[in-house]
Amino acid sequence: MPRLESSPLGVTDILFYTFAGGPEKFTLMSGQKLGPITVAYETYGTLSPRHDNAILICHALTGDAHAAGISREDGRIGWWEVLVGPGMPLDTDRYYIICANVLGGCKGTTGPSSINPATGQPYALDFPLITIEDMVRVQKELLDYLGVERLLTVIGGSMGGMQALCWTVLYPGMVASAIPIATSPSLSAQGIAWDEIGRRAIMADTNWDNGNYYAPGHPRPESGLAVARMVGHLTYLSEESMANKFGRRLRNRDKYSYSFDVDFEVESYLKHQGDIFIKRFDANSYLYITRAMDYFDLRGENATLAQAFAGTQSLFLFISFSSDWLYPPAQSQLMVEALQEAGRGEAVEYFAARSPYGHDAFLLEAQQQGPVITRFLERVRREKFKKGA
Amino acid sequence: MPRLESSPLGVTDILFYTFAGGPEKFTLMSGQKLGPITVAYETYGTLSPRHDNAILICHALTGDAHAAGISREDGRIGWWEVLVGPGMPLDTDRYYIICANVLGGCKGTTGPSSINPATGQPYALDFPLITIEDMVRVQKELLDYLGVERLLTVIGGSMGGMQALCWTVLYPGMVASAIPIATSPSLSAQGIAWDEIGRRAIMADTNWDNGNYYAPGHPRPESGLAVARMVGHLTYLSEESMANKFGRRLRNRDKYSYSFDVDFEVESYLKHQGDIFIKRFDANSYLYITRAMDYFDLRGENATLAQAFAGTQSLFLFISFSSDWLYPPAQSQLMVEALQEAGRGEAVEYFAARSPYGHDAFLLEAQQQGPVITRFLERVRREKFKKGA
Repeated sequence: MPRLESSPLGVTDILFYTFAGGPEKFTLMSGQKLGPITVAYETYGTLSPRHDNAILICHALTGDAHAAGISREDGRIGWWEVLVGPGMPLDTDRYYIICANVLGGCKGTTGPSSINPATGQPYALDFPLITIEDMVRVQKELLDYLGVERLLTVIGGSMGGMQALCWTVLYPGMVASAIPIATSPSLSAQGIAWDEIGRRAIMADTNWDNGNYYAPGHPRPESGLAVARMVGHLTYLSEESMANKFGRRLRNRDKYSYSFDVDFEVESYLKHQGDIFIKRFDANSYLYITRAMDYFDLRGENATLAQAFAGTQSLFLFISFSSDWLYPPAQSQLMVEALQEAGRGEAVEYFAARSPYGHDAFLLEAQQQGPVITRFLERVRREKFKKGA
Repeated sequence: MPRLESSPLGVTDILFYTFAGGPEKFTLMSGQKLGPITVAYETYGTLSPRHDNAILICHALTGDAHAAGISREDGRIGWWEVLVGPGMPLDTDRYYIICANVLGGCKGTTGPSSINPATGQPYALDFPLITIEDMVRVQKELLDYLGVERLLTVIGGSMGGMQALCWTVLYPGMVASAIPIATSPSLSAQGIAWDEIGRRAIMADTNWDNGNYYAPGHPRPESGLAVARMVGHLTYLSEESMANKFGRRLRNRDKYSYSFDVDFEVESYLKHQGDIFIKRFDANSYLYITRAMDYFDLRGENATLAQAFAGTQSLFLFISFSSDWLYPPAQSQLMVEALQEAGRGEAVEYFAARSPYGHDAFLLEAQQQGPVITRFLERVRREKFKKGA
């Protein structure tokens, strides 16, 4: 039964758009072809006649299209409810906001758990490898279908920020601005390593069965996926926030159990994070999406980041968080400097927020991000959508 | 066949001491009893008649008794060869050096893979939970057997540092000095969480079989143990050292494979670390030893660290490394301040080394640690072993 909480935006519906269903398939960056592709998305607000109020929200690794409001499907509140809604910084009364589940996902958009029309069975590992660029090109198909000619901004945190960056390079004329939050122009060696550990944890689970676990009655690689999630989750928190939240507090006991049971609060929390995640996410999607993140390199064929940014036309607002050690502020700083080097310094704003919440701050720090985003969007409207522009 | 490399110390032998073999068992901190207990150890150098030159080296999570020289058993070079040997800071020509495998280990000392005399089968999970204090009390039994009445110093990094700290509290009169390196008076919530993820990864492997994988022909939980090792290993490195060593370099290819094969150098490295580890370490020992680390809290029954240190009599040399985010310098600083608060400020030295190598620096940074250790040991001899003292 849907658990209906309260949301100023009210109930929202998930919608679907399918394309490349004919003989003409969609060509991926790898050269492989895929079709049909269904995109699950939600929209909030109304597109203005001048097309000057469209905002695309891009989600992170485990997100989905349901950014705000109450899902009619399951009663869940959207994952960015703190920023999206009537009167909010991403104001659904003023803006037309679109959020779509990424290609390769498991929340309605075509991914490894979707049915392969060639076999009538789920793709599993027959699903082709995808990239951040592919995700963005699928979003472009959706916007074309929705009749959105120009974006006021494209915004997202973490992998959502990678997509926002990719948009400015792939479709420079279409993106008035971008707000890449807590993100990076490419993962560091450490970032790739964390992703690889998550994948190894999933593949180490014998129930994973080389990806073929979708048949009814076949057990799911839940233990492996839970470990992958625990590793990921830990990289999203900061030592400081964990010390504040858990410290060395014991869970429902006043002395050690001298066993491998849950003794510490932090163990209980981690276990809970793993347990809820395996109910809502597909292990193969986790493999494909983390791989897309590893492969992302904003430079593309360019030698430097500055060269990659040289062809962009967007205004940029970068946001980073002081305690984010997975996507540290230095990576945002690098992009600011590359844009300056590309002669686009006046197009760049950078808000280096102080926060104890680590990488997860992009989901939590509404008070800090909100006013900065609001003011930036006003600048974008002023500079990019002048009367007659 | 032993692979004999060169070592100034030459070939070293592993030795064994067994105690608590009779009806009188060894009582653990948990209250459980264990016996007989065999301790695997090595010694280098000769004990002086005045017992003023004995040094106990304590190893970290995955270490063993073979700290230096060439193992007669398998030709391996010792894990702290950079600091231990003739003319080295831990000078085998001057000092009598002892290193023992910890209780719960899998390198000769009694642990979960040892035979339970009650059943004739390996203990597996019937092995009782152990603590750092238990490890230290077993080392004390060994020193009594060896006739060592006093230690010039007890030294170790990471979990070895926890043991060194524990020695100063449990046996204050016996320990002239301690050198706790890259360590902590207790794990942070984040530290406990990393350990718990390693354990979950092992337990998620169906081959783990609730710990009962020792029978001939039974597969070992190698996939799970490899994932645990990869997670651990990554926490021992710094982002900086990984960026320098691997960056985003591809492995034997010039473009992406668009597959889940090894594309990046860092993936290949991680895989290698997992592969070699599963050949040398027992998964159940990994569970028991990480649990002992979680449980360690130098405060014991005291309210504060300062109170715990108040009864110590040792001189202390703390060493930390700037890029160590698992045991950050702040944790050493905390202990320095606690000793000052306990009125023992004059007994404390603190060397906060700059290093790019993360937690692993304690195994690598011989050039930085060596002179500091040499000078400190001279001070200890001067102040603690004066003629007639």
